[in-house]
Amino acid sequence: MTSDLAEHAGERVALAGWVHHQRHLAQVSFLLLRDASGIAQVVIAEEARRASAATLPAESVVEIEGTVVASPQAPGGFEVHDPAITVLATPAEAPPFELRRPTLNAQLPSVLDHAAVALRHPKLRAAFAISAASLAGFRSTLDAMGFTEIQTPKIVGAATESGANVFGLDYFGRRAYLAQSPQLYKQMMVGVFERVYETGPVFRAEPHDTVRHLAEYVSLDAELGFIRDHRDVEIVLRSVLAGMVETISERAAAAVAQLGIELPRVPAEIPRIHFHDAQLLIEAATGERVVGEPDLAPAHERWLGEYALAEHGSDFLFVEGYPMTKRPFYTHAQPDRPEFSNSFDLLFRGIELVTGGQRLHHYDDYLSVLAEPARVALAGYLEAFRYGMPPHGGFAIGLERWTARVVGVPNLRQVTLFPRDVNRLSP
Amino acid sequence: MTSDLAEHAGERVALAGWVHHQRHLAQVSFLLLRDASGIAQVVIAEEARRASAATLPAESVVEIEGTVVASPQAPGGFEVHDPAITVLATPAEAPPFELRRPTLNAQLPSVLDHAAVALRHPKLRAAFAISAASLAGFRSTLDAMGFTEIQTPKIVGAATESGANVFGLDYFGRRAYLAQSPQLYKQMMVGVFERVYETGPVFRAEPHDTVRHLAEYVSLDAELGFIRDHRDVEIVLRSVLAGMVETISERAAAAVAQLGIELPRVPAEIPRIHFHDAQLLIEAATGERVVGEPDLAPAHERWLGEYALAEHGSDFLFVEGYPMTKRPFYTHAQPDRPEFSNSFDLLFRGIELVTGGQRLHHYDDYLSVLAEPARVALAGYLEAFRYGMPPHGGFAIGLERWTARVVGVPNLRQVTLFPRDVNRLSP
Repeated sequence: MTSDLAEHAGERVALAGWVHHQRHLAQVSFLLLRDASGIAQVVIAEEARRASAATLPAESVVEIEGTVVASPQAPGGFEVHDPAITVLATPAEAPPFELRRPTLNAQLPSVLDHAAVALRHPKLRAAFAISAASLAGFRSTLDAMGFTEIQTPKIVGAATESGANVFGLDYFGRRAYLAQSPQLYKQMMVGVFERVYETGPVFRAEPHDTVRHLAEYVSLDAELGFIRDHRDVEIVLRSVLAGMVETISERAAAAVAQLGIELPRVPAEIPRIHFHDAQLLIEAATGERVVGEPDLAPAHERWLGEYALAEHGSDFLFVEGYPMTKRPFYTHAQPDRPEFSNSFDLLFRGIELVTGGQRLHHYDDYLSVLAEPARVALAGYLEAFRYGMPPHGGFAIGLERWTARVVGVPNLRQVTLFPRDVNRLSP
Repeated sequence: MTSDLAEHAGERVALAGWVHHQRHLAQVSFLLLRDASGIAQVVIAEEARRASAATLPAESVVEIEGTVVASPQAPGGFEVHDPAITVLATPAEAPPFELRRPTLNAQLPSVLDHAAVALRHPKLRAAFAISAASLAGFRSTLDAMGFTEIQTPKIVGAATESGANVFGLDYFGRRAYLAQSPQLYKQMMVGVFERVYETGPVFRAEPHDTVRHLAEYVSLDAELGFIRDHRDVEIVLRSVLAGMVETISERAAAAVAQLGIELPRVPAEIPRIHFHDAQLLIEAATGERVVGEPDLAPAHERWLGEYALAEHGSDFLFVEGYPMTKRPFYTHAQPDRPEFSNSFDLLFRGIELVTGGQRLHHYDDYLSVLAEPARVALAGYLEAFRYGMPPHGGFAIGLERWTARVVGVPNLRQVTLFPRDVNRLSP
């Protein structure tokens, strides 16, 4: 790999990749070879080889055998001399972008339209190395805590959680839906494995074209039993986030350097504020009337992000106790203030990143909150509670939201390989 | 956890789980406590506590504090004495099955209808511990080989691979489809990361109700660039299978013991046979005329499985060179016999487990095999080749097929938490 040159100084090595760029000077030619790990400078001195290399357009696929030489001027401190170049494939035409530029000079729609080639740009693909490392960190942290990975269906018979924004499909002549989350299934599986997680696609027929919404995204879900309340869930979530950051720094260090970003620091204890107290603070600070509102506006979440940084030095803040009126049917109330819930949002730099909380676990409680048609539609789910379920709770992290915040880009489409939204269904 | 008792002999411990079964003898009661790790025997001697425990129906959710005592008669050699029992939840009625039986006495449709409770049976859930470990082994093996995990869309604009058996959906007023595989996306991403994998759901509107087909299953996909031919893909696949088996034995040893199964041995080199030679052998052995047929019948795959075991002592056999007529459009021909392909099936104990091979990588080759409408529908995919792609190939393992074979059950529904088929859409 081009990233290994330093370990092979003086040796003859075989590299393979794409012709990223060439410069032809009077006496010598420089060929930049790009592979999955980075870029190597190849120096061509011999005249016939220079002439031959000069015929290779950018994005030619080549194998290069050459000698590794230390060179202070070369990127990375090493370059390849005396190369023998074998061409494996030649592009049919020049790419729509100049991939050699430090930053890709193109508008987002054009980048997305031409993803197969745009994603080859080192800065664009770096975000996806961070995404992959985040996934690995999510799983390894939970594996170490005794969680079992599960796979639950994405085609479901009932539009369960809300009914809104759900994709319908024809399923062998019947109506079916794409799952908006694995919520109900992961709860059922707490009855089997106590602690479970799933990483997979979820689907929302979100009609609004915003930077914060996708019609399909990757949800990192966890659920655990035998908790006291939502605080136990928050503790697991904190460990998971710390594990994700640690795995990024271990596995995607090159991508972090490529992007010049600073990874978030997850405090040993993430500060918490009750929803009601947050509203009081916001009122006091802004003069706006917000107490009594059932949710926080994005501007107020941003204000709380600044508050958490100023007051606690933290990029993260738990807002606990959202009003029951805005939470889904399975939400557990706050025992001493039942208009509020044992649920939380985690704000990361002032933007909602994770939603979680404690769920109802008594069968009778579900019978109280669900009307008859819902009880019928959710019969298989309700069986878990009918036959005994422990106190439990969990959370869901949107992978693209996480990656976007870590990378520092505003639009989720910038951290999605092939995004889906109200206007986009290809490539 | 109940599996940790031996490490806490003489200590007071806290356990939590479900009342699996109780036996009340003249002087003493035995309560079997089931948690995610196994079953512990709890001995209740004190009269008032015996009376109280006797009121707890099976599947009551309890916390138990007690003292760990070595006892040769107890399952696992240790039991819990002098317990204090706290009830967390009480089932509303008796489960439809007696979970305490060593084997669940129920027909598969009933098991699937009542998955939330049936999966609590230790033997049923064991298969899913093996499935989770298999996934972990797939990923860790490929991570160590420089692969990058990717997430590609499950909603697609064109029914790409075949057009048959595809689920359609309404996508904001347009026609869309559920992806039958991540094949085209993983190829595109070879141009970005060289080596990629994805684990996720795929969808087939399979109208046949057989033990071998599901409408939704989990596909373990890998694709790698800069190969010589399909043989390089086979080598990676062998390592992946070995890694999956190794991870099962490390992470799911209790499940393996629970099921009493023997894990497959993956040979250092999996034997290979060319499709044409396989047909000649089958003809010679069975007298049936099969040369010229474009595919192998299940009975012939079984015959080859026995042949591989007898001839090579191997549970696995690569069948290489399937005729081009039966392979998808991106299949690379065998250079010296172009009616055959550089593709393979991997048979595991006589059943097809994996399909893989080398793909076309030259843009012109794709123009030759795709008609104009397909070129338009696949424009985003074809860009990868238009701008230079290396020789590449890959494979896809069906997770449920793998787990079913490892566990030794005939029906994929037995290793799927919530299976989807032509008749089943819930729970």
